[in-house]
Formats: sequence, structure tokens, C-alpha cells
Amino acid sequence: MNNRSPSTTTTASRDRILDAALDEFFTSGFHGSTMRTIGNRAGCSAANVYNHFENKSDLLVEILRTASDEQFTATRNAIRRAGKDPAAQWRAAVGAHALFAAQRPRECLVANTELRYLGEIDRKRVVGSRDAQEDQFIAIAEAAVDLGIFHVDRVHQAVTAVLLMCAGIPVWFRADGPRSAEQIAADYAGYALNLVGYRPTP
Amino acid sequence: MNNRSPSTTTTASRDRILDAALDEFFTSGFHGSTMRTIGNRAGCSAANVYNHFENKSDLLVEILRTASDEQFTATRNAIRRAGKDPAAQWRAAVGAHALFAAQRPRECLVANTELRYLGEIDRKRVVGSRDAQEDQFIAIAEAAVDLGIFHVDRVHQAVTAVLLMCAGIPVWFRADGPRSAEQIAADYAGYALNLVGYRPTP
Repeated sequence: MNNRSPSTTTTASRDRILDAALDEFFTSGFHGSTMRTIGNRAGCSAANVYNHFENKSDLLVEILRTASDEQFTATRNAIRRAGKDPAAQWRAAVGAHALFAAQRPRECLVANTELRYLGEIDRKRVVGSRDAQEDQFIAIAEAAVDLGIFHVDRVHQAVTAVLLMCAGIPVWFRADGPRSAEQIAADYAGYALNLVGYRPTP
Repeated sequence: MNNRSPSTTTTASRDRILDAALDEFFTSGFHGSTMRTIGNRAGCSAANVYNHFENKSDLLVEILRTASDEQFTATRNAIRRAGKDPAAQWRAAVGAHALFAAQRPRECLVANTELRYLGEIDRKRVVGSRDAQEDQFIAIAEAAVDLGIFHVDRVHQAVTAVLLMCAGIPVWFRADGPRSAEQIAADYAGYALNLVGYRPTP
């Protein structure tokens, strides 16, 4: 007898489909995936996949938006914990952002590689969340430039460079490699402090 | 009357197919492309595409290897022109590497996003050339660390961060934007000098 409530079953089924779709997009690319191959991975029919999601783009949007929101939240919480010093905030923000990239490689690689295949409207549904992430970094860096502790022109462009550097982590990082995700994140936070010409006030 | 020699015609036809394949991989992804859709773009039949290339992987390998070789050569020439100072070499190398990324977005984006779909042997045919690029940067940075003008641990990891930052340029750079490819390349060279903790000898 199945004693789970219908809504629990539905949520579990939806989550299983999302995880299968992420695997499928990661392995075969957006264009190489179909609702049927996603269903196969999730152990259900294409019809069942359609019960939860209108189409493949809908699945990709949901995956990328959830990942982006989680990365945003992790970064925002790290900034809050870092206190008021913009250099400490910057280190914490890049560290949290980089840690997410190292720990969630499938989401980050699929975001890097498959986002451009979404149509204009669907892309906007994802990009808004990414812009919000960028804005957090810009606010910190601008405050630090105003205080004279960061020395960089064109803050937005420098932030983009830092975020793309972090987005590249899953291309090479292996969880079973010699250094941990936390160590990599700390190293990248150091690179990012250097990149913006950080010099503590004398 | 066609007065081109057969070999000129063959080369032109081969180049047209390569360019069409690059467009097709860029637009539809490796998995979303077929020899037929590539032929359509090139204005020829799939059979004609097969006359020049064994399969889709063969086309992707040829595109990525050629681009990687050109980027390697541009970087190596820039290093040679920079003279003996490792900081000047580093600035020149990153500048040339970044400039290629800004000027050849299709090749760089397809390399970033589609390389992982190649089989093991085909991937090795491409990756060797990329490793050679990395080695150029590592040699310069190690010399600079030895001279005490770069201050960075784990040189290889820092080089990877710099190259991934450059690889991200085509994600956002637009040729009709406010800043030129040359300006972006110079900015990124500056970021990369900062990143490795460059301090001129006193």
C-alpha cells in the first residue's frame, strides 16, 4: 500500500524528472535531449513528463532558475555574514559563488552551455536572476572603489570577468582531486581580490 | 566556364563546409546538427559533406583544432614581440589570447560548449593543442614567480583561472558595443596581471 499523500508523490515525481532532465541536458545537450529520453532517465513515460512540464524549454528554465536562485541566496548569506568591510564582503561573495560552481557542476555547466538555446522570453526568465547576482557584486565593488581600497575601472566589466572565471570552475574541477571545493573557492576569492586591485587602506 | 583548378574548387568547398558547420554547431549545438543540416547551410548535399569529412565529430575536431592552433600562434607571436620581461610577456600573452576570444566568438563558444560531446580519442586530438597554450602561460608565470614579481601559489591553477576568464569573453562581448575588442583585451591583460599578484621589483 502506498501511504504517501498524492501531493508528496507528485513533488517526488517532479523532482525526479528535473534531476533526470539535468542529467540528460548535461550528457546530450539541450538539442540532443527529448521529453522521451528525459522520461527514460526518470523511469517514467514522456506523457508523465508532459504532466509536469509543458516542454523541454520549460524544464531547462526551471533547472537554471532554481540553480541561479540558490547561488544567489548562498552568496547573499555569505555577504551578510561577512560584516561591513567591502573587502571581506567581496571575498565572501566570490568564495560562496565559486563554492557553488565547484559543488554543483552539472547545473553550472548546463547554464554555461545550454542557456543560449532558449528562446528570448525563456532566456529572460533565467537571466533576471543572473543579473540580480551580478548586481550584488557590483554594489560591493563600487563601495570599495569609493573607499579607495579597490582600484579598477569599469566595475561592471571586472565583475563579469570574475563571475566568468568562477563559471569555468566546473570545466576542470574534480571533487576527487587533490584540493577540496572549499580550498578552490578560497583561492578564487583571493584571485578576485587581486583582480580588482585590492590594497588595504594604509 | 569554370576556370578554377579542381584543387582550388575542392579547398573552397571544404572551407565553405567548415564555416557552415561552425555556424550550425553554434546555432543548434553539436547534438542538434546533422551532416544534412550542415550541407544545407553550405549549399550542398550531405553526400558532398561526407566527401570531405567522415562524420560530425571529424568536422568539430577540425574546427576546434584549427582555432586552437591559431590562438596558440597569435599568443606565441605576441610573447616573442614582448621581449624578455615576464610581466610584459604575460600582458602580451593574455592580451593576444583575449583578443582572439573577442574576435572569434563562434569558435570560442563552440569550443567551450561542444568539446565535451566529443569521444575520448577525438577530444585528445583537440586538447593537446589547448594544453600547449596553457604551457606557454605557465612558463611565463613560473619565471615571474622565480623573479619575485608575481606572487601566487599554484601557478597552473591561476593560469587556468585566467584562461577561463578569457574564454568567457564571447559570452558577453559584442563587436558593436561601446568598447573595442582591443580595449577589452588590454583590460583583461590588466586583470590577469593583478590576479597573479604582480608587483614590479622595487
